[in-house]
Amino acid sequence: MKNVYDNEMFFNEYQTMRAVEINANNLIENPIMKSMLPDLNGKTILDLGCGDGNMETYFVKNGAKKVVALDLSENMIAEAKKINNHDNVEYYVMGMEDISSINQKFDIVYSSLAFHYIQDFNKLLNDIYNLLNQGGILIYSQESPLSTAPIFENDNYQSKIFIGNKRYNLLSDYCNQTERNNYWNGVPVTKYHRTYAGIVNALIKNKFNILEMQDSYASAEAIALCPKYAYQNDKPYFTFVKAEK
Amino acid sequence: MKNVYDNEMFFNEYQTMRAVEINANNLIENPIMKSMLPDLNGKTILDLGCGDGNMETYFVKNGAKKVVALDLSENMIAEAKKINNHDNVEYYVMGMEDISSINQKFDIVYSSLAFHYIQDFNKLLNDIYNLLNQGGILIYSQESPLSTAPIFENDNYQSKIFIGNKRYNLLSDYCNQTERNNYWNGVPVTKYHRTYAGIVNALIKNKFNILEMQDSYASAEAIALCPKYAYQNDKPYFTFVKAEK
Repeated sequence: MKNVYDNEMFFNEYQTMRAVEINANNLIENPIMKSMLPDLNGKTILDLGCGDGNMETYFVKNGAKKVVALDLSENMIAEAKKINNHDNVEYYVMGMEDISSINQKFDIVYSSLAFHYIQDFNKLLNDIYNLLNQGGILIYSQESPLSTAPIFENDNYQSKIFIGNKRYNLLSDYCNQTERNNYWNGVPVTKYHRTYAGIVNALIKNKFNILEMQDSYASAEAIALCPKYAYQNDKPYFTFVKAEK
Repeated sequence: MKNVYDNEMFFNEYQTMRAVEINANNLIENPIMKSMLPDLNGKTILDLGCGDGNMETYFVKNGAKKVVALDLSENMIAEAKKINNHDNVEYYVMGMEDISSINQKFDIVYSSLAFHYIQDFNKLLNDIYNLLNQGGILIYSQESPLSTAPIFENDNYQSKIFIGNKRYNLLSDYCNQTERNNYWNGVPVTKYHRTYAGIVNALIKNKFNILEMQDSYASAEAIALCPKYAYQNDKPYFTFVKAEK
């Protein structure tokens, strides 16, 4: 399976976007994910969709014993091995669909903004459950169901509208838990929309004990750096889950 | 505390609306609530916000041993005692804020479309937990967080908009878990908006084991009777929770 991050144009655009320090990943998603992590000292961690490995350096600096980090993109793994190389981090080119082949167990499974690309969420959760030690923790973020829900008729869509002075987001197809085909940086991307209830039920079905669910918010600092992040309050970009085996 | 259902104009409008068989309560909410109930044989049930007691007759017909049914409205309880009177059903005028004074335990706590009127959801869940037998079940419905979220500038608002041929709902203030002041049948009504994540976290915090979360959907039969119910798919009216002590 060819990964979107191995499309050269997309990869370059993505690298440029992430290199800018004022972005939603750095200012919103990443601080919330870090705040949800347990004490990492002596822990073994599996990172699903590690990208360029920036969290691997964080895990190691905070005492993780061993990290296995996967990404479907050869470009990303090559980059990670270059800039976030550590003795106790192993990087592999591997899709989340194939993790049932991994032959060890972990204290923490971590995944940042990748699960919305996965079609079979039930299989993924079942595989993760099998890869966790008893009492182990799954922490993941994904695009918010309010972001993935609406289907627009063409690619020049408007997703928000002003009525008087107030901005509203457009919402449709919330209960349609199917794929969404959009463009991102000029490349077609397929995501899978799931409702909040759908996420909760899938976790329960796969025997997870839900510990916390969160929507993204922007700190005062983030809003000062990028005022439009105040709109998180109207419709969060991201949703976060912490669950226990 | 004066209840909106004891406002005479409102009560009459409400009775007229509910008397029509084609309404969202009969065609959407009630069938889903019934489908979520466990076997009622020999069970004790506490119904919070029983209205005119129509579910009490259903509970008794399906084998419930005893039902305690509360409503804040004197009008509603008077009506219930008249039209849904049974030896093993006790009706009381009582608000959900006061249930900690009840001195017995139940197998099932049931509540239809009432929790969005309650300001202190944490206290309510804690009180319900204390009123359930071990292994007892809470089943409730409320207006969907997608319905309660948006704040509109005046009462002549539009909550939907067409773009081309497609209808979108307007969404704002989703993360604002505060009160919402609207008009219903000409009477001001205060509701409390909570997000899906907020509901999940409150249940977890109060030691409930979540068994199921659902959004409303319209059956083919319901859509045939009332075509606009197909829009449930874009933005559900109701959200349902089943949780265990």
